Amino acid sequence: MNTVIPKISDFPTGEENTAYAQYFTGKSWLAPLTSDKTLNVPLANVTFEPGCRNNWHSHTGGQLLIVVGGEGLYQERDKPARHLKAGDVVEIAPNVEHWHGATAHSWFSHLATNGSPESNENKWLEPVTDEVYQAANQQISK
Amino acid sequence: MNTVIPKISDFPTGEENTAYAQYFTGKSWLAPLTSDKTLNVPLANVTFEPGCRNNWHSHTGGQLLIVVGGEGLYQERDKPARHLKAGDVVEIAPNVEHWHGATAHSWFSHLATNGSPESNENKWLEPVTDEVYQAANQQISK
Repeated sequence: MNTVIPKISDFPTGEENTAYAQYFTGKSWLAPLTSDKTLNVPLANVTFEPGCRNNWHSHTGGQLLIVVGGEGLYQERDKPARHLKAGDVVEIAPNVEHWHGATAHSWFSHLATNGSPESNENKWLEPVTDEVYQAANQQISK
Repeated sequence: MNTVIPKISDFPTGEENTAYAQYFTGKSWLAPLTSDKTLNVPLANVTFEPGCRNNWHSHTGGQLLIVVGGEGLYQERDKPARHLKAGDVVEIAPNVEHWHGATAHSWFSHLATNGSPESNENKWLEPVTDEVYQAANQQISK
């Protein structure tokens, strides 16, 4: 069954994100937006279905998220979740463990790029449990 | 007289861009969106009033533009102008001379970041003449 993806931003949605599916709970879509190796500022749009989030992870170069549509969540270890809406920017320092994704009831799209893209590596960890995810959703609804 | 700036994106408009005004024809506004030096992916929203464009210039690290609102123009030396709308991305390779700005009749906002931000330098050149600017506007209206 094909999912009907609502238009929540002006950026392309791309294809179902099968390459990273093993690190996500739920379905996501990936649209690479850059290709110039001499510039080397990789940018992609990531779209999450409601309830979808990625595993806990970190980046050796850090990551910048630019929210372009819907509503989402961002959380670092031992910190409260942050409620994300279009126009928000998240600066994730190198090696900080975190996760991001849609809220339970909204689609969500963010652009993403990395610091030090020539050497950045991603470190993928365990899935975000339903308990942690539900707690984050409850926290932002208060 | 204060200019009334229409809301054309979800990102903040910031303050009038006086620091770079000497390199612009017309008024622009600048909103820095990042501050984390350990991540070091500088991102800002630049908003141009109708008719506003920056001088011909280049970046030693190159530049990435992410269009978030309105309609604009991008042109490299000896190339046709590109018509920009929300959802477009422009990859500008290092040292390529170019200019960008609003169309004659539309406000315009893009996010901007640079390649190799730790060493990037901007090289500012001559203003875009009215003739070149009008030709670019006419070209995209065809």
